[in-house]
Amino acid sequence: MIWFTEYQTKNTGLTVKVKEAKHVQSKYQEILLLDTYEYGKMLVLDGAVQTTERDEFIYHEMLAHPALIKHQNPERVLVIGGGDGGTVREVLKHPSVKEVHLCEIDEDVINISKQYLPTISCELNNPKVSIFVEDGNKFLDERKEYYDVILLDLSDPVGPAEALFKRAFYEKVKASLRKNGIMTAQTESPFLQEEYFKTAVKEIQKVFKNYGTYLAFIPTYPAGMWSFTMASDDVNILDSSEKDYEKIKDLNTKYFCDKIYTSLFALPKFVSDLIK
Amino acid sequence: MIWFTEYQTKNTGLTVKVKEAKHVQSKYQEILLLDTYEYGKMLVLDGAVQTTERDEFIYHEMLAHPALIKHQNPERVLVIGGGDGGTVREVLKHPSVKEVHLCEIDEDVINISKQYLPTISCELNNPKVSIFVEDGNKFLDERKEYYDVILLDLSDPVGPAEALFKRAFYEKVKASLRKNGIMTAQTESPFLQEEYFKTAVKEIQKVFKNYGTYLAFIPTYPAGMWSFTMASDDVNILDSSEKDYEKIKDLNTKYFCDKIYTSLFALPKFVSDLIK
Repeated sequence: MIWFTEYQTKNTGLTVKVKEAKHVQSKYQEILLLDTYEYGKMLVLDGAVQTTERDEFIYHEMLAHPALIKHQNPERVLVIGGGDGGTVREVLKHPSVKEVHLCEIDEDVINISKQYLPTISCELNNPKVSIFVEDGNKFLDERKEYYDVILLDLSDPVGPAEALFKRAFYEKVKASLRKNGIMTAQTESPFLQEEYFKTAVKEIQKVFKNYGTYLAFIPTYPAGMWSFTMASDDVNILDSSEKDYEKIKDLNTKYFCDKIYTSLFALPKFVSDLIK
Repeated sequence: MIWFTEYQTKNTGLTVKVKEAKHVQSKYQEILLLDTYEYGKMLVLDGAVQTTERDEFIYHEMLAHPALIKHQNPERVLVIGGGDGGTVREVLKHPSVKEVHLCEIDEDVINISKQYLPTISCELNNPKVSIFVEDGNKFLDERKEYYDVILLDLSDPVGPAEALFKRAFYEKVKASLRKNGIMTAQTESPFLQEEYFKTAVKEIQKVFKNYGTYLAFIPTYPAGMWSFTMASDDVNILDSSEKDYEKIKDLNTKYFCDKIYTSLFALPKFVSDLIK
């Protein structure tokens, strides 16, 4: 019997029973593909769970839809990280979207996801999608004022993604948005990764005029309590309109819905206090 | 080095590093008191984590405050289960409360909590509190139309608490509420305990005219996604008033707040679908 424990801190972790394990050492990180009894296939990078077949819908829906609803007409979308394809799949549920760029540094993540996670990677071959195997930091230098929505679908701020949680990077993201552009970043767990969370959110607050942080329940992420931060210079993201709700009605989702949208920025007191 | 894993299902669990462990076999269950590195002291009954010093505030605040705010003048409150005292501590933050009854079947849970969990059990000796070491099912037979608020702070529906998740028990709870009474029950995890969750909520829906289910992030409970169901025959619990918000302003809490109250019943789509 194989058991795998992801140490979310040095003192606590998530333990899962495993049917089969597959190891790949890529140029950037250790990739582990586990077939688990509880969560189905699970993708693990450098020991940290990235996505599982059973609960991936929550993370991918909550990263993609709020910004795509707030934007009145998103046509060009960039996903940085997210080589598994789950965020791209959600982005393509919005009929206004004409072009999705996926910038992922590690080609092996894309290939393993295409082979073993077909329900997640299923839209990577969609003709609207272009894949760039590049460093997100360099990629943005060549795309000024281009995107309507940028989604930062990054692994933890250690290893390959470290530089992408810094203020200089958020400045580049802002410069790559065109008028009325919005970005959303995953910003870690406010409970078990308090410092990562605070730092990421506060750097975003320094760069953009409007911002808001929201949470989602993600069972396989640290503490099951995950955060995202949305930001924009031109759009007051705290507002919403009737048109937003019409768009939500037509979305095929399992977690995100009108009620989640209405109460998006309602944070528990201790979480608001951390980022005041 | 000691590690403890709570198996939340047979295929997944929460793993924590332990400094010291203490075992007691009570008349009803195996009681384990762990001193953990991540979560401080942790109380475990029959292998299931009940409370930890670090995250207990979330469960206890979210079980107690919503009903105590919805009720316009709660004076008499009953807590069934909850021998650790955390719910009683939160109840006593409401100045209108004159009398709190705690009905806990297992005296050893109370004694261990008094000895080892002082920040949780701290109000058990408050003169407003009476403790009854009794079976909740029998206790209610003798208290008809007495309470303003009843809080069901029960362990999982296996072992000593099994009968307290059934319709006959919810009928008794209803009969023990006086006019404008409200009850809230913890109703398990909609993610890893889908059947327990559905059954408990649907039974409550059959017994009371008004009801609503809400969630809270509880890192040490299954999937970190926990549910509570509030119900009342006389009070439309979906409504709220300005007076509610004035009461919330004066509460000293770390999780519960005005925003959480406003968006209390905003559920993810898959959770609403389970209890439609």
